[in-house]
Amino acid sequence: MTEDEKYMQAALELAKKGMGFVNPNPMVGAVIVKDGRIIGQGFHERYGGPHAERKALASCRESPEGAVMYVTLEPCCHYGKTPPCTEAILESGIRRVVAGCEDPNPKVAGKGLRCLRNGGVEVELGTLEEECIYLNEVFFHFIRQQMPFVVMKYAMTMDGKIATRTGASKWITGEAARRRVHEDRHRYASVMAGSGTVTADDPMLTCRLPGMRNPVRIICDSRLRIPLDSRVVTTTSEVPTWIATASPDQERWKRYQEAGCRILYTESGVQGHLDLKKLMGRLYREKIDSILLEGGGTLNFSALQSGIVNKLQVYLAPKIFGGSSAKTPVEGPGVAVPGDAYILTRSRIEPLGEDFLIESEVEYGVHRDN
Amino acid sequence: MTEDEKYMQAALELAKKGMGFVNPNPMVGAVIVKDGRIIGQGFHERYGGPHAERKALASCRESPEGAVMYVTLEPCCHYGKTPPCTEAILESGIRRVVAGCEDPNPKVAGKGLRCLRNGGVEVELGTLEEECIYLNEVFFHFIRQQMPFVVMKYAMTMDGKIATRTGASKWITGEAARRRVHEDRHRYASVMAGSGTVTADDPMLTCRLPGMRNPVRIICDSRLRIPLDSRVVTTTSEVPTWIATASPDQERWKRYQEAGCRILYTESGVQGHLDLKKLMGRLYREKIDSILLEGGGTLNFSALQSGIVNKLQVYLAPKIFGGSSAKTPVEGPGVAVPGDAYILTRSRIEPLGEDFLIESEVEYGVHRDN
Repeated sequence: MTEDEKYMQAALELAKKGMGFVNPNPMVGAVIVKDGRIIGQGFHERYGGPHAERKALASCRESPEGAVMYVTLEPCCHYGKTPPCTEAILESGIRRVVAGCEDPNPKVAGKGLRCLRNGGVEVELGTLEEECIYLNEVFFHFIRQQMPFVVMKYAMTMDGKIATRTGASKWITGEAARRRVHEDRHRYASVMAGSGTVTADDPMLTCRLPGMRNPVRIICDSRLRIPLDSRVVTTTSEVPTWIATASPDQERWKRYQEAGCRILYTESGVQGHLDLKKLMGRLYREKIDSILLEGGGTLNFSALQSGIVNKLQVYLAPKIFGGSSAKTPVEGPGVAVPGDAYILTRSRIEPLGEDFLIESEVEYGVHRDN
Repeated sequence: MTEDEKYMQAALELAKKGMGFVNPNPMVGAVIVKDGRIIGQGFHERYGGPHAERKALASCRESPEGAVMYVTLEPCCHYGKTPPCTEAILESGIRRVVAGCEDPNPKVAGKGLRCLRNGGVEVELGTLEEECIYLNEVFFHFIRQQMPFVVMKYAMTMDGKIATRTGASKWITGEAARRRVHEDRHRYASVMAGSGTVTADDPMLTCRLPGMRNPVRIICDSRLRIPLDSRVVTTTSEVPTWIATASPDQERWKRYQEAGCRILYTESGVQGHLDLKKLMGRLYREKIDSILLEGGGTLNFSALQSGIVNKLQVYLAPKIFGGSSAKTPVEGPGVAVPGDAYILTRSRIEPLGEDFLIESEVEYGVHRDN
């Protein structure tokens, strides 16, 4: 690891502290180095708050004049919720800026670095670039595709079951895996489930870790039939619940609205299911940058079929339930032939307590016939 | 790695060359070292053939007097198909014997090493012991439990399907995974499938790799109804097919026997299924030391329920089929609550081409409620 990479790594670690608090902004970390010592550091702590670069400059124990700034994302050069960071950097006398990756936001997109160069600052782009982009995969997707980043998550046994034949699913995975799910409910802006899951399991879908954020709960309920006494409906004073429905019955809407739910009217697509692609467009406009999809098999298949799933998280538990009628993670009609399968790429496996977590990317438009 | 471990590793590599050819004997490798040079080596090449120790002694380019022998398994001291290896070692003037592990065979079980010690040879036991035992997990199980070692194998998608909704399963995994299955058909003495699989897919269940052995094909067909024109029945002149059935109808038996199949009459257990535990006892007496169970969901669940499964091999393909009616690897009635799940331990994951192979041991009599 070079010196530059070492400091960029430190900036990356700082950036991660903003996870779950900055959405739909990117996580950013910055470190200021002078004479081989870190003299200041900062990160973007919450949406609307000061940027990492300004935090780092403000924290300097000595003058940053002539120092190097390591920042995970290109500094901004436009007036948003805060004034441009490039201005603050130019004023500070920073000699050199090392940026991890370019900001994909069209308002920045290289202009920030150009502005620094024009101001006489030495600029270097691309140190630990892959890591810096990966850290903000949600942000990159949200900005470029103008859609929320969707992570389909399920826990299954080694024989592909998400519940026993009686529907029991508590618990499939161990504590470490369950903790990770709660971290992800904090990390991603929202969690999504279907009416079937809400009706059968009555989940809270909240993040139960202290000091962490709760996701917006989005329930796909095309016919608007989840019980009014289900926990996602009765706890809206603590955590928002949005119900996406194709039901035009405003009398029904009222009952949920009076309980504090928000109704997102969504057209129906194939077979009476919600048009998930349209729902994603709506959620983008609502600034929902990411969704942890904790659906049952029906919603999961609809989501794959609609092409909205970006990432798959499979928690694999070393046990077997068996059962020809036990539920599996992706159901619906399914594909007819292996060549029509949805293809996963870049799979990574990580042991997590007694379980495994497999993360893959979904590659649409590709069919492979082995 | 110490010197001893280095030479034991070499002996282990040699031993593996006997894989699939020596059953129900163990794989054994031996290396003879003098003045820091390997002067002879050998392995047990096929059932009934000379033992590794004798092969190694016979291969010596110079006198083994005063040399050290590294052997993965304790040398035998009894007359079996060949005379005792201890005799040959004592005659050769070998000074020291390093053995990987004790031979669990009650005819040996420490007596071989004692015999060498009494003959004035310096003896050391347990170098790379775990590896040496693991290499012969089939043999250790077969000798100690007096039952075949059963490996349940299936290939499934990341959503737990072994076929699409139409029943199509060619191919779920890529070439590397399929090659590994064929290696295992060579490695294990037999392959087992159910009548459902034979009727639906008409598989050959042979090893299609050049120079390798074919397993005995064992078909569980409680009511004796697989088609007489299925490939496992029509190709018995090339590869043996044994049909385990609970049908007492000897007229029916004849039709299969005339086609070259062997009928293993087996009592039926629960719900008309074969009593697999009794079948295992029979196969033990037939010297079948190992079974690669390539069952469908029904046979797989019966096998787990009968307590005969030792190891699980899951080939996990990075794709999704979906489908509420698509088949899953373990079906049958299944367990009622998560706490009754069959527990898997010591799981190891290995990437295999684009797929993953997960190998676990089945731990019976343990229930875990997370």
